[in-house]
Amino acid sequence: MLVVMKAHATEEQVRAVCEKIESLGYRAHAMPGAQRTAIGITGNQGEVEPGTLEELPGVQELIRVSKPYKLVSRDVKQENTVIRFPGTDATVGGPGLAIMAGPCAIESREQAMAVAERVCRAGAQFFRGGAYKPRTSPYSFQGLGEQGLQIMAEVRDKFGMKIVTEAIDNESLELVEQYADIIQIGARNMQNFSLLKRAGRTRKPVLLKRGMSATLEEFLMAAEYVMSEGNYQVILCERGVRTFADHTRNTLDLSVVPAVRRLSHLPILVDPSHGTGKRNKVTPLSRAAVAVGADGLIVEVHSEPDKALSDGMQSLYPEQFEELMAQVRQIAPVVGRTVPGIGAHVSVDLRTQTDFHAPAAD
Amino acid sequence: MLVVMKAHATEEQVRAVCEKIESLGYRAHAMPGAQRTAIGITGNQGEVEPGTLEELPGVQELIRVSKPYKLVSRDVKQENTVIRFPGTDATVGGPGLAIMAGPCAIESREQAMAVAERVCRAGAQFFRGGAYKPRTSPYSFQGLGEQGLQIMAEVRDKFGMKIVTEAIDNESLELVEQYADIIQIGARNMQNFSLLKRAGRTRKPVLLKRGMSATLEEFLMAAEYVMSEGNYQVILCERGVRTFADHTRNTLDLSVVPAVRRLSHLPILVDPSHGTGKRNKVTPLSRAAVAVGADGLIVEVHSEPDKALSDGMQSLYPEQFEELMAQVRQIAPVVGRTVPGIGAHVSVDLRTQTDFHAPAAD
Amino acid sequence: MLVVMKAHATEEQVRAVCEKIESLGYRAHAMPGAQRTAIGITGNQGEVEPGTLEELPGVQELIRVSKPYKLVSRDVKQENTVIRFPGTDATVGGPGLAIMAGPCAIESREQAMAVAERVCRAGAQFFRGGAYKPRTSPYSFQGLGEQGLQIMAEVRDKFGMKIVTEAIDNESLELVEQYADIIQIGARNMQNFSLLKRAGRTRKPVLLKRGMSATLEEFLMAAEYVMSEGNYQVILCERGVRTFADHTRNTLDLSVVPAVRRLSHLPILVDPSHGTGKRNKVTPLSRAAVAVGADGLIVEVHSEPDKALSDGMQSLYPEQFEELMAQVRQIAPVVGRTVPGIGAHVSVDLRTQTDFHAPAAD
Amino acid sequence: MLVVMKAHATEEQVRAVCEKIESLGYRAHAMPGAQRTAIGITGNQGEVEPGTLEELPGVQELIRVSKPYKLVSRDVKQENTVIRFPGTDATVGGPGLAIMAGPCAIESREQAMAVAERVCRAGAQFFRGGAYKPRTSPYSFQGLGEQGLQIMAEVRDKFGMKIVTEAIDNESLELVEQYADIIQIGARNMQNFSLLKRAGRTRKPVLLKRGMSATLEEFLMAAEYVMSEGNYQVILCERGVRTFADHTRNTLDLSVVPAVRRLSHLPILVDPSHGTGKRNKVTPLSRAAVAVGADGLIVEVHSEPDKALSDGMQSLYPEQFEELMAQVRQIAPVVGRTVPGIGAHVSVDLRTQTDFHAPAAD
Repeated sequence: MLVVMKAHATEEQVRAVCEKIESLGYRAHAMPGAQRTAIGITGNQGEVEPGTLEELPGVQELIRVSKPYKLVSRDVKQENTVIRFPGTDATVGGPGLAIMAGPCAIESREQAMAVAERVCRAGAQFFRGGAYKPRTSPYSFQGLGEQGLQIMAEVRDKFGMKIVTEAIDNESLELVEQYADIIQIGARNMQNFSLLKRAGRTRKPVLLKRGMSATLEEFLMAAEYVMSEGNYQVILCERGVRTFADHTRNTLDLSVVPAVRRLSHLPILVDPSHGTGKRNKVTPLSRAAVAVGADGLIVEVHSEPDKALSDGMQSLYPEQFEELMAQVRQIAPVVGRTVPGIGAHVSVDLRTQTDFHAPAAD
Repeated sequence: MLVVMKAHATEEQVRAVCEKIESLGYRAHAMPGAQRTAIGITGNQGEVEPGTLEELPGVQELIRVSKPYKLVSRDVKQENTVIRFPGTDATVGGPGLAIMAGPCAIESREQAMAVAERVCRAGAQFFRGGAYKPRTSPYSFQGLGEQGLQIMAEVRDKFGMKIVTEAIDNESLELVEQYADIIQIGARNMQNFSLLKRAGRTRKPVLLKRGMSATLEEFLMAAEYVMSEGNYQVILCERGVRTFADHTRNTLDLSVVPAVRRLSHLPILVDPSHGTGKRNKVTPLSRAAVAVGADGLIVEVHSEPDKALSDGMQSLYPEQFEELMAQVRQIAPVVGRTVPGIGAHVSVDLRTQTDFHAPAAD
Repeated sequence: MLVVMKAHATEEQVRAVCEKIESLGYRAHAMPGAQRTAIGITGNQGEVEPGTLEELPGVQELIRVSKPYKLVSRDVKQENTVIRFPGTDATVGGPGLAIMAGPCAIESREQAMAVAERVCRAGAQFFRGGAYKPRTSPYSFQGLGEQGLQIMAEVRDKFGMKIVTEAIDNESLELVEQYADIIQIGARNMQNFSLLKRAGRTRKPVLLKRGMSATLEEFLMAAEYVMSEGNYQVILCERGVRTFADHTRNTLDLSVVPAVRRLSHLPILVDPSHGTGKRNKVTPLSRAAVAVGADGLIVEVHSEPDKALSDGMQSLYPEQFEELMAQVRQIAPVVGRTVPGIGAHVSVDLRTQTDFHAPAAD
Repeated sequence: MLVVMKAHATEEQVRAVCEKIESLGYRAHAMPGAQRTAIGITGNQGEVEPGTLEELPGVQELIRVSKPYKLVSRDVKQENTVIRFPGTDATVGGPGLAIMAGPCAIESREQAMAVAERVCRAGAQFFRGGAYKPRTSPYSFQGLGEQGLQIMAEVRDKFGMKIVTEAIDNESLELVEQYADIIQIGARNMQNFSLLKRAGRTRKPVLLKRGMSATLEEFLMAAEYVMSEGNYQVILCERGVRTFADHTRNTLDLSVVPAVRRLSHLPILVDPSHGTGKRNKVTPLSRAAVAVGADGLIVEVHSEPDKALSDGMQSLYPEQFEELMAQVRQIAPVVGRTVPGIGAHVSVDLRTQTDFHAPAAD
């Protein structure tokens, strides 16, 4: 059920409706829009009685939401959700494409800084990197943990990039929440509902990756789990699904981008690195992702991919990432998007940085 | 790496080898077999130096395990793993088929008792039921929680059946561990590595369901996560995979049963309820599962499927479950298995039970 | 549209209704049943006017068939279709399981005879073998062509087995129709509608394999293509579908067997050889196929699988096929089926045959 | 095996090598390149003896081709294959994108002309339309047959567009070969090897669609079938594969475009209409297809999609196709491609055409 407020409804009226809803044992989710505020009602005790609400001051109408997802739906919020980051002009879902880049895993301070400098200079506003790695084998490198988070914080301090990193359980989420600007939930945890709810109780944006065999509805319902707990800053991310095809590690399903746009107000990114699993396919699919209408990219970049502790096969060399950015910059305007200028958001002078060893190739 | 002890090696010698392994910073896993004990070595710091171990008393040889899974592998343990339950003759992996049955979710004491009586009488030695339900929608019934576990404990007390129920996160696992005889990890959590490790630190058998798009190797690696923490009582379970086919909810992949048997010593069950999602396909696929060589079945049964709070479409009526058991009983001997007699393991006289209302159909 | 005739309607009345239907520009398909005859009406000019038909003598009622498949449907014919072969008691769809076995491809007279003797003696009533092979590569062995068909005819003469072989285009179908007892249409041609229609104009039973990514509806519609041309002797065959799973060549979807039984009167076999692609999985999945309710099996057997010109990896040794038959024989009665006795249908004394070299293992 | 001729080898020397190859019982395929000619050797009698060839005049070296596909491979021909059409500047595989558009099926002269005028004016150089339709149901509209081909020929005469249409069997191919400029082989026939070989014996370019569950290797091997018969003008086309995802009819696998480019010299198009099955996804995925590097598009357009006899749901309105072209025109230069100007290749004045009724929306 959805309460649509009148265009001129006051904040007080919105608050009063929310309180009434909560007093009935439901949860109220006020979603301010350009024209009017809508209030989503959630809870698992069946539909609320309309009579008690439609007489309240400022209420225009009550709409029954027939889709299984509610807060995620464009029915509740027509305008695109734009996620902003204080102290920067980077957004996710705004006219500028959000470019996230960095190594699969944070391996060392030196490695992180070397990659960060390169991707920052090429235009990335977000630095990605794993401190907690969900690995198929218990005997593989599992990430540096909190030490990795600290290194990422240093990257933010030095380069001004916002930090994106994955939480794999409630314990790691506790720490990730403290350090990161965006909390990533990985594909394997897309239906770890306990973790989704926990992420919904943070106040940091959540980057939710599509599960390897998730339908669109399951994907949106996973976002709904986060939102139902009160965190409305959810970023979706397509990263390839599992099929019989064997020329790529996964099959990148770009059609999900326009499909999400139709149904939901949430932004959606594309991860061409996991989506293909092959370095030589990352740039073509990045171009395609921007062309199809994605709100940004999340790309793996490593200064020495052959020595990477995980996913080296799909990591770009920094030079390749620069080339990717150059191409993306040309496609963005066609779909009405912009891409940040080279290093435009960097407030420090990269060329005078001397406190870490730049790689020879630089 | 695997240390194979001599046939006559003493317990003390085994212990000494384990201590040596641990002193080198690795973890030792002693696996007693019919002929000899093997000791698996795990850890993520590369291979152990053979020289330090092969000279120890009682050691016959060191074998390099080339597969990514180690403790799961038949290389480490040739004999089938048989899981026993004190105070009963029920086993998983032994000559008798393990039959687990019950409702999808525990909805009430009355519902649980009604179903339990019927499945017990029909021959089930294990009672399944969800207290914590991973649901696609946050607004769906999420299970009774600890109250559901208490009801299951009552079922155990009354009918002597062992209790199988799902843990969905570390918090619920804490409670499930206390109440249940077998801890279930669901398909959506098959790669929730944090939960797998936590389950590996319990001393209760773990029933691990195959993920919806998990390869055989990923499935075995998930079991390896549990075992690597010292819990060697893992039961695998095929429950259907996701494909394009739309005549069933999932596609039950029975070929994984002989595939698991070749590679691993762990027992494997089949869940024809989730595996097909349609009541009318559960019995034929149960017959097929036993014929293909599964160690048992886990089947959803509900006295009033049409009123079930979850998965009613795939739950059998009690009468149908009795028919299923009758058919399975005939197929079992062909593959060298037995099925418990009707209610044979029940120590109380069911016919004199009066403290719950038996359903009309009974 | 379906015309149901009265129980006591005469053949003449049936014929008159058919003629009326044809005069309206449609095609009539009389389907005699145990109680009464039904007449299916097909054509692509929309629905027939009921008024013109329901007044004819002997007509009981007109039923609109809402499913896209008509002649295939149980709505049109409630009794199972049983396909008989003159001069033998072998059937497909009757109480006896139909067992088809033989090499993937006919390679030589000697090879065919060697395999035929073994599978015949083990109880197969049908000899399978390819004379025209659809191969992924144009440079692979494409089959012996008509020479292969002649060898198969010799096998029939000597052993009394009925012959099953694939037609891959209209040209080969012309020849296969002359030689074979059952015309096979392979998975790759399941939607080669031109070939299906051509097969529908023959008077030989057609064995139609499910396409690698065919839904149940597409599978049934392919059978409808054959039947719409007047050939109602169609045998369906599940042979595995394509999924992400990599422990078998295809994923054998046994749930399609009960699904077909519900919707259609046509018999359905299972091909565990292509369905798994691995010799060691053929026997377990054969047991499962019989247990799930299939009407029979089609199995690849080769005296020297390692030298086979195609599909050697999935071909059983003759000894393995004998073991398979022994196991299937025990499961069949549980599902109310019989399996022919060892060599029971063979009229010649196999032990006195001397005109081909028996393999050493015999 | 591949014979590489010296840079200055004469045509006579090439011919002599080809003759020698054929005299040995193999087939020779001369592939002229920018630098030198390579001669592919095919046949299914094992490898040719190198000794007999490497001594011939003009031969530089013999290379063993290890991949299963040979003529398709970039090993045999490094330069992209460009397919030209006499009397027009349209190409497939050249710098200009090939744009093919038209209705799913040719339904009438009027319908074809109405669509043709619009897509021609918007810049399509190729007119697509089905005269022979492979339909799931035998009772659906199967196409106008030769009458449809005649209408297409009229379209070519009037608008100067080249004609693309599907052949579904040897019989229809006979006629399609006479009328069409490009012979299409549909996804369902991708492994109809008999039809592929027949198409390989024509001298018209062949547009080969990827099968619904074809791996990249199977796709290339299907092209190899056509080429092995001497027709080297093969155009590949991605049209979506079958997966569990249900928000589109198929899952468009754009990663196959760069994958094909790496392995093969053949051009590859994308069909976003079948690839998504939904009108609202065709334009975004067309942008993506051009961005990823496809050589062109094949798009379904219908003046009255709601009245279309097939595939109306995925057909664009002419206005939408014009918008698609406008967007594609902006993306093409980023990937170094051009798109023909609006109606630039049309030699007649469309505005004076009066012999068919233009739709109201025009």
